[in-house]
Amino acid sequence: MTLLNPLVPIILGSKGDLHYGQVVANALTQFGVASEIRIASAHKVPAALLQILSDYETDPRPKVYITITGRSNALSGLVDAQVTCPVIACPPLSDTFSGADIYSSLRMPGGIAPLVILDPEGAALAAAKIFALDNPEVHASVRAFQKANAERLLQDDDELNSKSKPSVPSLPPQESSVNNFDL
Amino acid sequence: MTLLNPLVPIILGSKGDLHYGQVVANALTQFGVASEIRIASAHKVPAALLQILSDYETDPRPKVYITITGRSNALSGLVDAQVTCPVIACPPLSDTFSGADIYSSLRMPGGIAPLVILDPEGAALAAAKIFALDNPEVHASVRAFQKANAERLLQDDDELNSKSKPSVPSLPPQESSVNNFDL
Amino acid sequence: MTLLNPLVPIILGSKGDLHYGQVVANALTQFGVASEIRIASAHKVPAALLQILSDYETDPRPKVYITITGRSNALSGLVDAQVTCPVIACPPLSDTFSGADIYSSLRMPGGIAPLVILDPEGAALAAAKIFALDNPEVHASVRAFQKANAERLLQDDDELNSKSKPSVPSLPPQESSVNNFDL
Amino acid sequence: MTLLNPLVPIILGSKGDLHYGQVVANALTQFGVASEIRIASAHKVPAALLQILSDYETDPRPKVYITITGRSNALSGLVDAQVTCPVIACPPLSDTFSGADIYSSLRMPGGIAPLVILDPEGAALAAAKIFALDNPEVHASVRAFQKANAERLLQDDDELNSKSKPSVPSLPPQESSVNNFDL
Amino acid sequence: MTLLNPLVPIILGSKGDLHYGQVVANALTQFGVASEIRIASAHKVPAALLQILSDYETDPRPKVYITITGRSNALSGLVDAQVTCPVIACPPLSDTFSGADIYSSLRMPGGIAPLVILDPEGAALAAAKIFALDNPEVHASVRAFQKANAERLLQDDDELNSKSKPSVPSLPPQESSVNNFDL
Amino acid sequence: MTLLNPLVPIILGSKGDLHYGQVVANALTQFGVASEIRIASAHKVPAALLQILSDYETDPRPKVYITITGRSNALSGLVDAQVTCPVIACPPLSDTFSGADIYSSLRMPGGIAPLVILDPEGAALAAAKIFALDNPEVHASVRAFQKANAERLLQDDDELNSKSKPSVPSLPPQESSVNNFDL
Amino acid sequence: MTLLNPLVPIILGSKGDLHYGQVVANALTQFGVASEIRIASAHKVPAALLQILSDYETDPRPKVYITITGRSNALSGLVDAQVTCPVIACPPLSDTFSGADIYSSLRMPGGIAPLVILDPEGAALAAAKIFALDNPEVHASVRAFQKANAERLLQDDDELNSKSKPSVPSLPPQESSVNNFDL
Amino acid sequence: MTLLNPLVPIILGSKGDLHYGQVVANALTQFGVASEIRIASAHKVPAALLQILSDYETDPRPKVYITITGRSNALSGLVDAQVTCPVIACPPLSDTFSGADIYSSLRMPGGIAPLVILDPEGAALAAAKIFALDNPEVHASVRAFQKANAERLLQDDDELNSKSKPSVPSLPPQESSVNNFDL
Repeated sequence: MTLLNPLVPIILGSKGDLHYGQVVANALTQFGVASEIRIASAHKVPAALLQILSDYETDPRPKVYITITGRSNALSGLVDAQVTCPVIACPPLSDTFSGADIYSSLRMPGGIAPLVILDPEGAALAAAKIFALDNPEVHASVRAFQKANAERLLQDDDELNSKSKPSVPSLPPQESSVNNFDL
Repeated sequence: MTLLNPLVPIILGSKGDLHYGQVVANALTQFGVASEIRIASAHKVPAALLQILSDYETDPRPKVYITITGRSNALSGLVDAQVTCPVIACPPLSDTFSGADIYSSLRMPGGIAPLVILDPEGAALAAAKIFALDNPEVHASVRAFQKANAERLLQDDDELNSKSKPSVPSLPPQESSVNNFDL
Repeated sequence: MTLLNPLVPIILGSKGDLHYGQVVANALTQFGVASEIRIASAHKVPAALLQILSDYETDPRPKVYITITGRSNALSGLVDAQVTCPVIACPPLSDTFSGADIYSSLRMPGGIAPLVILDPEGAALAAAKIFALDNPEVHASVRAFQKANAERLLQDDDELNSKSKPSVPSLPPQESSVNNFDL
Repeated sequence: MTLLNPLVPIILGSKGDLHYGQVVANALTQFGVASEIRIASAHKVPAALLQILSDYETDPRPKVYITITGRSNALSGLVDAQVTCPVIACPPLSDTFSGADIYSSLRMPGGIAPLVILDPEGAALAAAKIFALDNPEVHASVRAFQKANAERLLQDDDELNSKSKPSVPSLPPQESSVNNFDL
Repeated sequence: MTLLNPLVPIILGSKGDLHYGQVVANALTQFGVASEIRIASAHKVPAALLQILSDYETDPRPKVYITITGRSNALSGLVDAQVTCPVIACPPLSDTFSGADIYSSLRMPGGIAPLVILDPEGAALAAAKIFALDNPEVHASVRAFQKANAERLLQDDDELNSKSKPSVPSLPPQESSVNNFDL
Repeated sequence: MTLLNPLVPIILGSKGDLHYGQVVANALTQFGVASEIRIASAHKVPAALLQILSDYETDPRPKVYITITGRSNALSGLVDAQVTCPVIACPPLSDTFSGADIYSSLRMPGGIAPLVILDPEGAALAAAKIFALDNPEVHASVRAFQKANAERLLQDDDELNSKSKPSVPSLPPQESSVNNFDL
Repeated sequence: MTLLNPLVPIILGSKGDLHYGQVVANALTQFGVASEIRIASAHKVPAALLQILSDYETDPRPKVYITITGRSNALSGLVDAQVTCPVIACPPLSDTFSGADIYSSLRMPGGIAPLVILDPEGAALAAAKIFALDNPEVHASVRAFQKANAERLLQDDDELNSKSKPSVPSLPPQESSVNNFDL
Repeated sequence: MTLLNPLVPIILGSKGDLHYGQVVANALTQFGVASEIRIASAHKVPAALLQILSDYETDPRPKVYITITGRSNALSGLVDAQVTCPVIACPPLSDTFSGADIYSSLRMPGGIAPLVILDPEGAALAAAKIFALDNPEVHASVRAFQKANAERLLQDDDELNSKSKPSVPSLPPQESSVNNFDL
């Protein structure tokens, strides 16, 4: 086994979630991770879903499943219970009932452990972080992504304060201030 | 086909819901309806669940399924999509997150239609009402149950007010009062 | 008695719910089930509502009531308590208070058992499933509807993956994979 | 007509709410207002409820109805729509679903106007305030009740601060301080 | 004292609620009840508010106060505690936090009893019902309003079903049907 | 030390909150309080944030921090724990999940005490009130602001009622009315 | 003016909140800040409350008000609008309606700015931080409190890991790791 | 790199969560995964937390972080943004505000992707599934765990129905029944 040549099967509960799945797939591409979008309802075609999972389990590539389904989420739990690979549930949220659908992704019975994340690009990042554990290229792309995010924030602050920043020289934090409690 | 000799398969998501299932079974017995309690998780043993449903579908008795599972309810939707018989979802409620688990029973995708009811005895009553459509014995038991409920209320009011009730003679409602708007 | 020639009285709490009722009626037509839309508020014209129910009870056709009313739902419980036929509550949801109106359909007192479903087409499907217990034509239409839903999902997956599907031959599931836990 | 000899029919949805109704009745007694507790479910015995209302409408005493029913509140709206007297809905709250039952009392359809209050003693006070509009004895009891409440607060503050209160002489508020904005 | 010549002081928390107050005032006019719209914040000008209330209390006309204020409702409780007349809180709802502002109108401390209603026309109806206890003209207008509502519903049902209504002759309800449980 | 020459560091979690920060800054200007807008995510650049706080702590000007960040609010608690100056959390609200993000600002662990306020202009007012404790100019501006608010309300009421106000002479409140309970 | 000799008037809405107020008072004592507990309901004794505020405003000591009242919070907004000193609202929470009372403290109208905090000891800390802006003793006590909190955490981690901590030498963070993005 | 010898740093926000962390650690042990429990508040000792993360990043073992902190969860997002390893947030839930703390774990800003799971044993299972991607021993333990769960369910059903199971021979599913839609 190895984490090279990783694959993310993105399983949709219906075709209506296709755009959402493509956002995940595009973000995965940016981390150098391949994906395949499949459509299979845990309610309506459970046998076909089991067959899809069975097929994937014989595929030697390392896999993280990302399951995407709105409303009552049966898909994520069923997939998680049937495979040994990690499963990330990324349910498209609805405004109906203040988004209470999320609890169908969170309130899993014992022994079932899909991992929940709201942001589809975040789902891709999280999957990439898993493969990055033993894949230098993906590791590098994750690190570059995080670094770029941090640098953009620093740059945003710089641009905003290029003229007005306090010229008071910063004393060493040990002496008088902020974070010396824990240093 | 006929609605005589009806059967309610009560399907539990786990053994932990057994007591809840027995409340339903007992109430069904009072309406003269037979039931069988089965345990099968849609997440963990979907193939076994499909086999159970397949077996029941070859059973010629008229059936209403009652599905009982806490937390995220995958069971009710899967069963409903796989059988032509009516499915009643009767999820045991939890206080966690103010009982938001209920939305996993209500927010079904299109084309899937389990019917939701909170009270386990109510689930039995609703199933009995379905069989009562073409089963005189069950019909009689439903009617007797409803009649007894109504009479108990009238009796409760009588006992409470046997002395203090207004002795003002009631005029015909058409003349001066209440419900003449719609008569 | 028989479940041939079934009828669904669709009872609206006000004329404002007429469009919603017509969605139910149209879906029932597709399952080969006749319906009649009636308007009667449990609050404002309870005596007229009782008379409507009384009239229907003398009608020998098998019936499932579908009650449709927004805001505080008094209609569904009153109808359910007054008839022996099954009652399906299909309340049009409002965004106000995050849709908390639904609890007025769910929180019935003991002995009253309307069955709740959110989707109006789902209400029709559920009613059809009840009649399908002893009506071959309705049974066939329900089965065809479910089959078409399942096939469309399989087709959606096929179209999406006609080129990219994994060519790895699927091993028998007993050997290495997914659903062998429960087979 | 007159507001002398007032009567509050307290209508319970079931005998289970009897204690709650008695709290209201006792508080009404303290304001000098008579009451009668009746039991009648809008769901189960609507015709009996209509008859009760019809009887009361022929009773010449001025009336404010207080309706008490837990879970889905059909009673308050039905009563309000059938009588011209004011109706106060005082639903016993449940912790289930974070007390969402309250919305079944608040979300009335157009043209129906029961007035909602949570506290059973508050329901009695509000009814007394209505009769106090034209009943000197009840008016005096309401006023005495309010005055006692206010005085107890002043006394509580006095007792707590008898030693520690600031001895700084209070200047006239017009000069330097608080509420001069609106005087 | 008398309930003739009634007055509803409509107190707004700010000018922003003026349109809402005018809806109430117009509805009151239809019931033959006079009103005056005042603006006074319990937070910002409590002394002016107390003066307004003091002025009204010397006005001999029978009064029901209607208090209208969004967000955190301090106005209704303060007014209710300071006057012996009934107070109806009719808070304009906001979508923010799913309308949780309503709890600031409902969760009053002990001894304070504003009556809550959501619909501004309902607030006017409720106030009219109070005056109708001893004012024949207002009583007649309330009754006419309720009757018109009921008749419109019956008419809506008639128009919808003029052709399709079941011609099955309705048997007397005692014999076979619906509401005989409680008659 | 002194509260003259006060400064409000407004710390944003991201550039996306810039407009929101500027509303706060503009309101502070009206109270005569200087501010600086900084961008620093507690999640992404905690070391830079600690450095910013360290720099500010060496700045002798009296400071109140206002922290502005949407979604899960880590910023406010981290800042509050690291500085001795008061911290005001003013989170931009989202409709998602009915605004439940607010709890990430309120539910602080023990020993951490950012003060929460929803309205960005209110955050500025609250900061100004703090400096007003020992800054006559800011005190005067706060007082003028409050007075103007109160006077506008009185004026709004006057304009609305210039013709229709009751001409009944107001008796002294001690005699007959409202607020004599507590005077 | 000066921030020496600071005072926190703790205003309770009723005697029932006395214990809660004492928790605040005790915590203030630990920061070297004096306090006085007063009882005054904004609903029931607004004139007495205005008088209390008027008295305090003539007291030359620097003040931060802490207002404590359960249920619908009218007190905090009224106090904040009437004084120029900062006001901290610390409402005792109730489980009823999932603690929705908090919104009556948060949803203030424009121009009113009490600062909300849940933890009573946190309210004391926040008040102390305000006085610490220009009071060396209070500043020292706040700093000591924060430092002790931080040190206890470090100590807890040390005790837990004294044997099991990783002996891997930590490389400089700039080289390979964590927080180099923002340093 | 390799996924052999994996390590789960379990980071607690405070010592109060120690028991919760130990549940996770014990479950990890059962999957053959080592763990270390650390205590570090993102609010109070962010520099120490950064140092801990920096130390771990130089540790060559493959790591999945599990972050455990109640109330407002700042820890999980900060850790996730600072490390390339996957982060699983497993927040101990509170009943306060119906468990709304969960949103502080879910509502992460863009670019930050901790994966959320409620059950502490589920967090361990999910971490084990990640290591199982390239660790045969962990893979075997995960598979055995899942298999045991499935078998226990089948056994529970067998025991319950050993006598009462339907003896109707199950026809092949293709012919008459359940899951033929998708096979």
